[in-house]
Amino acid sequence: MAARVVDERTQLLQRPASEIILRTHTEPTEDLKQERRRATFNFEELAYVLNGGKELLEKKQRFAEILAKTSWGDKSRRYFLGREEEYVGGLRAALGIWEKMKTENLSLEDGALMRTLVDFPGGLELHIGMFIPSIMSQGSSEQQAKWMPLCMGLKIIGTYAQTELGHGTFVRGLETTATYDRQTQEFVIHSPTLTATKWWPGGLGKTATHAVVMARLMVPDERGAMRDYGPHGFIAQLRDLDSHLPLPGVTIGDIGPKVGYNGVDNGYLSFDHVRIPRDQMLMRFAKVTPEGRYVPPPPSNSKASYATMVFVRADIVKNAGSSLGRAVTIATRYAAVRRQTAPAPGERELQVLDYQNCAATLLPLIASSYALSFMGEEMMSMYRRFEQDRDRGEFGALPELHALSSGLKALCTWITADGIEECRRTCGGHGYSKLSGLPTLFQNYVQNVTWEGDNNVMCLQTARYLIKALAGVQQGKRAAGSAAYLNDVVSELAPGSRCAAACDECWLRPDVAAAALRHAAARSVASATATLAAATGGKGLAFEGRAWSENTVDSIRAAKAHCTFVLHQTFVDSVARLEAAASVSPPAGGQGQSVGADTAAVLRQLAALFALEQMERSGGVAALLEDGYMSAAQAAALRRRHRLLLAALRPNAVALVDAFAFPDYLLNSALGRADGDVYRGLLEMARGSPLNATQEGPAWPEVLRPVLAARSRL
Amino acid sequence: MAARVVDERTQLLQRPASEIILRTHTEPTEDLKQERRRATFNFEELAYVLNGGKELLEKKQRFAEILAKTSWGDKSRRYFLGREEEYVGGLRAALGIWEKMKTENLSLEDGALMRTLVDFPGGLELHIGMFIPSIMSQGSSEQQAKWMPLCMGLKIIGTYAQTELGHGTFVRGLETTATYDRQTQEFVIHSPTLTATKWWPGGLGKTATHAVVMARLMVPDERGAMRDYGPHGFIAQLRDLDSHLPLPGVTIGDIGPKVGYNGVDNGYLSFDHVRIPRDQMLMRFAKVTPEGRYVPPPPSNSKASYATMVFVRADIVKNAGSSLGRAVTIATRYAAVRRQTAPAPGERELQVLDYQNCAATLLPLIASSYALSFMGEEMMSMYRRFEQDRDRGEFGALPELHALSSGLKALCTWITADGIEECRRTCGGHGYSKLSGLPTLFQNYVQNVTWEGDNNVMCLQTARYLIKALAGVQQGKRAAGSAAYLNDVVSELAPGSRCAAACDECWLRPDVAAAALRHAAARSVASATATLAAATGGKGLAFEGRAWSENTVDSIRAAKAHCTFVLHQTFVDSVARLEAAASVSPPAGGQGQSVGADTAAVLRQLAALFALEQMERSGGVAALLEDGYMSAAQAAALRRRHRLLLAALRPNAVALVDAFAFPDYLLNSALGRADGDVYRGLLEMARGSPLNATQEGPAWPEVLRPVLAARSRL
Repeated sequence: MAARVVDERTQLLQRPASEIILRTHTEPTEDLKQERRRATFNFEELAYVLNGGKELLEKKQRFAEILAKTSWGDKSRRYFLGREEEYVGGLRAALGIWEKMKTENLSLEDGALMRTLVDFPGGLELHIGMFIPSIMSQGSSEQQAKWMPLCMGLKIIGTYAQTELGHGTFVRGLETTATYDRQTQEFVIHSPTLTATKWWPGGLGKTATHAVVMARLMVPDERGAMRDYGPHGFIAQLRDLDSHLPLPGVTIGDIGPKVGYNGVDNGYLSFDHVRIPRDQMLMRFAKVTPEGRYVPPPPSNSKASYATMVFVRADIVKNAGSSLGRAVTIATRYAAVRRQTAPAPGERELQVLDYQNCAATLLPLIASSYALSFMGEEMMSMYRRFEQDRDRGEFGALPELHALSSGLKALCTWITADGIEECRRTCGGHGYSKLSGLPTLFQNYVQNVTWEGDNNVMCLQTARYLIKALAGVQQGKRAAGSAAYLNDVVSELAPGSRCAAACDECWLRPDVAAAALRHAAARSVASATATLAAATGGKGLAFEGRAWSENTVDSIRAAKAHCTFVLHQTFVDSVARLEAAASVSPPAGGQGQSVGADTAAVLRQLAALFALEQMERSGGVAALLEDGYMSAAQAAALRRRHRLLLAALRPNAVALVDAFAFPDYLLNSALGRADGDVYRGLLEMARGSPLNATQEGPAWPEVLRPVLAARSRL
Repeated sequence: MAARVVDERTQLLQRPASEIILRTHTEPTEDLKQERRRATFNFEELAYVLNGGKELLEKKQRFAEILAKTSWGDKSRRYFLGREEEYVGGLRAALGIWEKMKTENLSLEDGALMRTLVDFPGGLELHIGMFIPSIMSQGSSEQQAKWMPLCMGLKIIGTYAQTELGHGTFVRGLETTATYDRQTQEFVIHSPTLTATKWWPGGLGKTATHAVVMARLMVPDERGAMRDYGPHGFIAQLRDLDSHLPLPGVTIGDIGPKVGYNGVDNGYLSFDHVRIPRDQMLMRFAKVTPEGRYVPPPPSNSKASYATMVFVRADIVKNAGSSLGRAVTIATRYAAVRRQTAPAPGERELQVLDYQNCAATLLPLIASSYALSFMGEEMMSMYRRFEQDRDRGEFGALPELHALSSGLKALCTWITADGIEECRRTCGGHGYSKLSGLPTLFQNYVQNVTWEGDNNVMCLQTARYLIKALAGVQQGKRAAGSAAYLNDVVSELAPGSRCAAACDECWLRPDVAAAALRHAAARSVASATATLAAATGGKGLAFEGRAWSENTVDSIRAAKAHCTFVLHQTFVDSVARLEAAASVSPPAGGQGQSVGADTAAVLRQLAALFALEQMERSGGVAALLEDGYMSAAQAAALRRRHRLLLAALRPNAVALVDAFAFPDYLLNSALGRADGDVYRGLLEMARGSPLNATQEGPAWPEVLRPVLAARSRL
């Protein structure tokens, strides 16, 4: 009856006493202990793997304790800060870490770890993440010698001003100009229109004194005619260093509140003919000589820039895994201690995690958080392998690596953003409270689907590569790397090609699942190619223009299918590698290079669940049925096996999230705390709400009292 | 090339000038005018239909102008408010409307319309929405006579305290007790545990002076043994009316910030043996006599309470349609004026809405917003029909109506919550800014998937009804109302049963789409029934306990499939009714009862798109292929037709959202403004950001200056 009477208030009032189930005390901390006893593997083995070994894991925990004790690292009021407090607090935290790194001379890695733990984005994000790297990668050695000491000594704070009010993704559309004046050997930086206003750069609003400004380089040619060389980078000072006021001709402001990330002062900026010396154009590659001759960069350099992107995206994928890991840690622990509705009168209420729909939400998300974590690691090693190639002048692997990293950036950030919100919803009402930690995590994270390239546009880059690769194969070329399966597309998509799953259990076999995902990918790439060919009316494939832009749905679908195949394959390969390494580097050793048999068995189940879930969700099953690759019986078997995997993994749910080993300090969640004492946690945190500063509340004196007070007591 | 170079910063720097496309000025306001000229129907006809006629539409616009000019209705700083300001502001707005209603003696409908337009939830929400209605529906006539004047005169402010820290959805688990003391003829209200703390009631934190408290009624029987009669409602005073301080034994506080809805002081409350007079138990139905005899309520009354729920859920569905309508209005107008990436050198950049993936996101959401709006209207008339039955003592239609309203509450709020976020993401970076209006809309709306019954639990109520109905049919009973198709389940699911779509165009036929959705629903109800039967090992169907809770995934899927079928059918029927009425009540008349042929044609396309989108998304196609009902060729045709519908509806996109006729005042969005002047709108709104109060920003004096200032100028 229970579910029947949800919220059916008045009706409840009339239930005869005999039907009333007496409440049972819930014992959340006991429930969580019990869950940990149920685990079939040693979660520490996985904790070492996911945290880069015992040493790093212990350092993470040690840092968390230290940071919690600092004035700027303390999180007890974090969810109660107004916008200004959040902005000031984010800066204090960044400066606090900066100081600590100097005084205790910590490594850059240690500093990065501290920033992750403090988790308080602020006005220095782009100084660290974009301004300094731009000078290092695009500045000449003289420029680096001049600017880096100022950056590292915080004598200046920089940002990176590219996006404009009218243009984000389409960078070639930027309108800001930097016009060379040969007489004074200066560049004149100007915002010719409203839409040329720089918009979004972090730290620009109130913090940055300088910026790398992307502006169209305009240089007059011999005949005095102005030539447009497109966007280049220029270092411009924005604010007076003594008064912090904007310099003449510079208009700056904060763009206002956002979904999240409100400690960061994303800003707007416009220039009214602001002059900067010639040597503030970043001149490592392209140059403008004093007499005004444009020197184009060496061609090799564009390849280097692709490499930078690959690195940035690998980092985003790694981060996606840990962000989703945080969310599933909170939701899974709470679902294990939250009890609702007794199965029968007199019995204890069920743990919410024992409702199939809850397990069907959380366990696949746990699987995804592992898939993304392994993918992040793999992308980092791909990048390192590429660096070695590059140093030998080898760039052959780059196009595929770049295309793959685009699609994975998109797919992984989608999985994580949507997954965090799903986790929040499984927490019921309390998930809506910021004290659960999930709202802030989602609000800060979700921008990942847009920045560093809108996800749909990222998918289109991958699709373009795959469609070209398939066209190449049809002309006898070989497809490389993750797209190699396209070499066998003819046999793969031959009418006779069938799924090998002869039994329910077959769906647990990595090769069977991988084959299905590969077939779905091949089919969707072929379909997208056909769609595009049809749109161009046989005039060959077009990768821009209306034929392309009016048929993006199938292309995006193809990119997703390809990346899903890669995610699963990487998951499977990683588990195999970890298990094989056990003899060389024993799991107990804490190197985080291996796992034992029990752990590997659970990871294989997770990888299988990941594959089946993706097929059920992303329309993969529909495609495979339509294609004739999968029979109705096989689809039904897949679904049955999916349900059985949920039950099989259920006892390990808590151990699997414990393995991420996020300190309570990082989670900052009343529902996700490791000891499971969630209700006390909620009450303790809620007491700190600013509205509780007074008993009467802020509206009493001026708003409520005039209405309510001085009325005779009832 | 465009998409290829997204965010590929450094690489861009090296493009030869010849490849650079010179920027084109975008003319957003012109673009929007152009879009309106492209419409193939008169949007006013639809505006009248969606707004209840010309008169109401004009009143809405008039109210918007009036409210914008009030101090409490002005929205210019709405996105910049801190928590305390938001709390105080929400109260000011509610009191402002309350005052206006009195002085200009406006109707309750007018007041509700004003609350919708001001859109500023605050501390009075539950006084209006729950406290007063509870007294009206559950209070005796004496109690109403005593309390209603106090409520309407705002001499007291009430809330409804049911949910506890440990129990929301499972109401029978509530722990708060109200124990009758025969000696003093009082009830002693007490919170025996931490988890018994009331948690979430709106306005409880700092505003309410009174509450209807749901507590387990405990009355000693003849032999002095305590008997538990389960949750009943009691009016308890919480705060002193002169000092606004909590009364002795009462602990109250605000529960802290949430995803959104932060103008509302959701609160916590615990009682330490607080005594209230006997006559403050709500006694319209159940009673406790002075001498302590419990008088149970008449059975009919539970039916009445079901009716209340149906009404509340009908209201939620109506609201879902308009909330999604707001989101698609903003996203569609912006996608029409936002231009990114020229198809070829020299050409203008494309409107984002002309990218297929953008149209494939927004047009189906426009279709959903219409489907939900028509469903809301239909549920209201279902409710009115039920009221007539009830007055004749007829309750036969109630179970089906109740089951249907549960599932529709869930499906419609899911579609809207996810749809608002999809709209936000299609706006790119600017969608992440609160100035777009979409973040606040989502953050306030998304709680709808949880409150008034968690959506999954709601679906399980519907599933329970459908599975029982199917079992009944198998025993020769008749299924009624929306479930009537289950009467023909045998022929529907017979092996030979096939989709009638013989051509691509067939998918435009309402009957073909409806048949497919009906078949999917019947199949999924049958599967859920089989799953459940298998789980109980042939021991008949169980609707609670482990067999039920461990097989909820198929049940929830069945409820969704059923409600999707109903949504589409209602859409189709509503369009037919509106077109048929044109002769009786001409569209131009402004009654909002009819539409002309051009408008009906567009609505039929929308209904078709709704059906095809739902089948593609919710795994309907997979189910129908697996089932053998649909062939691969038919699935491919469905997909082709879906794409063609996107192109067919594209010219009417802006007119279709204009028809909702949301005033700019309501949307409060820089991107959604009716004139399309989005970039000026963003800049004008951003200037008001609190961080812009000073040029240096709030961190300069104490945080930045010590680091940066007094450094020699470069």
